[in-house]
Amino acid sequence: FLFCSEQTESSAFFLQLRGLNKRTCQLSASLRLSRCKWLPEVTGKEELLSVGFYSSPFPVVRLGYSITITKASVRARQLILQNGLTLSDLDRHPELDVAIDGADEVDSDLNLIKGGGGCLTQEKIVAGYAKCFIVIADYRKKSENLGEQWKKGIPIEVIPMAYVPVTRALTKNFGGAAELRMAVSKAGPVVTDNGNFILDWKFDKVHEWSEVNTAIKMIPGVVETGLFIDMAEVVYFGMEDGSVSVREKQPR
Amino acid sequence: FLFCSEQTESSAFFLQLRGLNKRTCQLSASLRLSRCKWLPEVTGKEELLSVGFYSSPFPVVRLGYSITITKASVRARQLILQNGLTLSDLDRHPELDVAIDGADEVDSDLNLIKGGGGCLTQEKIVAGYAKCFIVIADYRKKSENLGEQWKKGIPIEVIPMAYVPVTRALTKNFGGAAELRMAVSKAGPVVTDNGNFILDWKFDKVHEWSEVNTAIKMIPGVVETGLFIDMAEVVYFGMEDGSVSVREKQPR
Amino acid sequence: FLFCSEQTESSAFFLQLRGLNKRTCQLSASLRLSRCKWLPEVTGKEELLSVGFYSSPFPVVRLGYSITITKASVRARQLILQNGLTLSDLDRHPELDVAIDGADEVDSDLNLIKGGGGCLTQEKIVAGYAKCFIVIADYRKKSENLGEQWKKGIPIEVIPMAYVPVTRALTKNFGGAAELRMAVSKAGPVVTDNGNFILDWKFDKVHEWSEVNTAIKMIPGVVETGLFIDMAEVVYFGMEDGSVSVREKQPR
Amino acid sequence: FLFCSEQTESSAFFLQLRGLNKRTCQLSASLRLSRCKWLPEVTGKEELLSVGFYSSPFPVVRLGYSITITKASVRARQLILQNGLTLSDLDRHPELDVAIDGADEVDSDLNLIKGGGGCLTQEKIVAGYAKCFIVIADYRKKSENLGEQWKKGIPIEVIPMAYVPVTRALTKNFGGAAELRMAVSKAGPVVTDNGNFILDWKFDKVHEWSEVNTAIKMIPGVVETGLFIDMAEVVYFGMEDGSVSVREKQPR
Repeated sequence: FLFCSEQTESSAFFLQLRGLNKRTCQLSASLRLSRCKWLPEVTGKEELLSVGFYSSPFPVVRLGYSITITKASVRARQLILQNGLTLSDLDRHPELDVAIDGADEVDSDLNLIKGGGGCLTQEKIVAGYAKCFIVIADYRKKSENLGEQWKKGIPIEVIPMAYVPVTRALTKNFGGAAELRMAVSKAGPVVTDNGNFILDWKFDKVHEWSEVNTAIKMIPGVVETGLFIDMAEVVYFGMEDGSVSVREKQPR
Repeated sequence: FLFCSEQTESSAFFLQLRGLNKRTCQLSASLRLSRCKWLPEVTGKEELLSVGFYSSPFPVVRLGYSITITKASVRARQLILQNGLTLSDLDRHPELDVAIDGADEVDSDLNLIKGGGGCLTQEKIVAGYAKCFIVIADYRKKSENLGEQWKKGIPIEVIPMAYVPVTRALTKNFGGAAELRMAVSKAGPVVTDNGNFILDWKFDKVHEWSEVNTAIKMIPGVVETGLFIDMAEVVYFGMEDGSVSVREKQPR
Repeated sequence: FLFCSEQTESSAFFLQLRGLNKRTCQLSASLRLSRCKWLPEVTGKEELLSVGFYSSPFPVVRLGYSITITKASVRARQLILQNGLTLSDLDRHPELDVAIDGADEVDSDLNLIKGGGGCLTQEKIVAGYAKCFIVIADYRKKSENLGEQWKKGIPIEVIPMAYVPVTRALTKNFGGAAELRMAVSKAGPVVTDNGNFILDWKFDKVHEWSEVNTAIKMIPGVVETGLFIDMAEVVYFGMEDGSVSVREKQPR
Repeated sequence: FLFCSEQTESSAFFLQLRGLNKRTCQLSASLRLSRCKWLPEVTGKEELLSVGFYSSPFPVVRLGYSITITKASVRARQLILQNGLTLSDLDRHPELDVAIDGADEVDSDLNLIKGGGGCLTQEKIVAGYAKCFIVIADYRKKSENLGEQWKKGIPIEVIPMAYVPVTRALTKNFGGAAELRMAVSKAGPVVTDNGNFILDWKFDKVHEWSEVNTAIKMIPGVVETGLFIDMAEVVYFGMEDGSVSVREKQPR
């Protein structure tokens, strides 16, 4: 089973510019290189991801496979249903073959910042239970170190009653600044699909991300972080010149 | 006890232009005319509502009274605490003396549309348990009939699992169109502070609002509507020329 | 499409005592009498509702039809998946052909009290979007007037911030007493699947239920009531002697 | 500022048996031994904790200090208000002087299992932001190793969409068995005050709890665990013979 989450509009836009056929082939070729065992079987199908980019901003995988999607992704759900695909969930399929998702930034170790869209907890759950997690992003998400490209900080989902002390703990322990994310289409803070708040933590230096991620998650009141460490198997960047740049996880 | 909710930025901005002293006096004068029994005692205090408009976008009443405020109004809460006011809630004070709030539109019968900010349920709860409910708005919210000024429709809070059939029921029974409100600072739909979705129902004619409000609220899956019928005691409009226009509830 | 909700343990137990074949046939016969257009097609299938009662406490309809079920009914969901049935939801199928559910009490006009299990809002949503709503209950739920058999009152789902003023409004306007339902497997009040509280309103006389239901639902802070007025098409009571007693909605 | 959470009925009952004056003095004596700087000032007041045990099941501290309490503890809130104490929250007081709470089990290293009542996340948040965290429990909670006394396992709060894969990850990685906690006063699973589910993980051996706690919290979909590691400063056990047994954190 396979999960395809929402992608940022920017990467979808990039793919639109590049055209369907060319991109499809390139992605197929790139995917063939991956160490994900599931991929060779898939890449024979020309229509991989072909739905996604003309129905911006959400790519939908047209594979004839079931697609697992969270209850909260209302727009992706609509696309899936309109395309006659099957919806599933983690109750029925607690282990996924592949998850494909975007990212807000990717460093050279394949550490990701995700959660610009506020769905970090759902996205980490889905990625965390996939045998293979593939990221697709455009060139603007490609960094050596986190923070080079993405300036909005690392989103951190918190229990509402704790947002003030978590804010203090974050900046006291790790520096930088943290802000409660405010909503635009409603008054007050953004409420996540889990009923929580989001802090955007703007870090002020390059950290040892694996350690920091664990330390933040252990702060009482933190539900999840937008740091995805050691999760992505391979990242495909759509480049400005139309090529695809690939970063793969290094064997340890 | 007294509740002061968030006001739209537009009306706060208007009041800023007009200056503190002038507005304060006019409001005091206007309030003296009201039939709310509580008001004469208050109007002796020159600083009524004086905090609110220089700390845009939220007016806070500086009265020496306790202020009841909902848990979700994070920014108003901050203002209140910064100003050394006391916070309370409906558990402790289930009946309020006065509630003051803004509105998105007011018709000639003092029917209101509220909920542009997505807090309609909290706002209706607070207004509903106040002995006197006062509305402050600028001239752009003043209409003869709902829909003349406010084009975004009536917000309706719905249980997420029912948003599709409620949408169908709304348009089938009452015409117009209804749309799920999407978020800007997160992906997917706006989630209210109660964990629900919001439909913006764009009605296409003037209705018998009292009947329609009851009928919509009885649709299974509807939590609350943004129609406030027969609730406001008096509405103060800040006019373009600096004057205050008053609409009072007619005795029946 | 068809929805089958959770049923009380008592009725499941009764059906267990009576045995599969006999009950199945009786139900088939009874259903044939119904005015629900969808039923003749169904009653040809002997296995109608046959899954339900040996997998107490939840009946699952084994029909070869899709079954729509809410996300929160975890146990029913498990049963459905274990039996290879298809799950759907109101996003995909906003109109159901038939909904079958239990009730806590049924009066002679087919007014129901439901919500002993705290799922009143979901249950009313499902029943409200079904062309035909069928109730199955045992003899202990059969009354002339509500309150004769069911002594726990009418459950009313409320927004947590308003539970105190709603309690006051209920008893002030309609008499009786209302209590916040407390949890057993957790500390504090029961939290519904929608994140709300439940008041159990113990009324002290027979009311004009249609009016009272509307009046309660219009109280600010009330999400839904456990009164199901003019919704059930037919009610089947499993009687103590093994027979089935049928109450049908009267034409108007 | 000081926080006092709900305590189990058992310990409240024990304290009732022992009588007000005796217990109060003993507690005062015991607290004097503690390294919490705040305590000497408090122990001069005879009425410390005197409210709590005759208003079972919730102790309330009558100190003339403000008490911070979470929004969800409805019954404790009622007690506090009835006793004329001041309520606060972590928005206003993000750092607490002292938190006092019960526990379901305490091992010889002062590791705790908490969350039998389903409030583990709130309780850990409050304890986590207190300078000094004091536990009061009866003799039945006193163990050398976790699991000797408390047989219901470690409660783990999870995002509902992930309860199945988290259950699998728990038992695969750490053995034992994990069960979704079902509600009694409503149908379906217990819903926490944060809108999540609870898994009760019945471990089958003594673990290195600090490591296991971190590992569980890092599982995608886990919100919080009921393991309180290195948090309690001192634990007071009310013993069967009326004495108080004290366990203090060892200096490192």
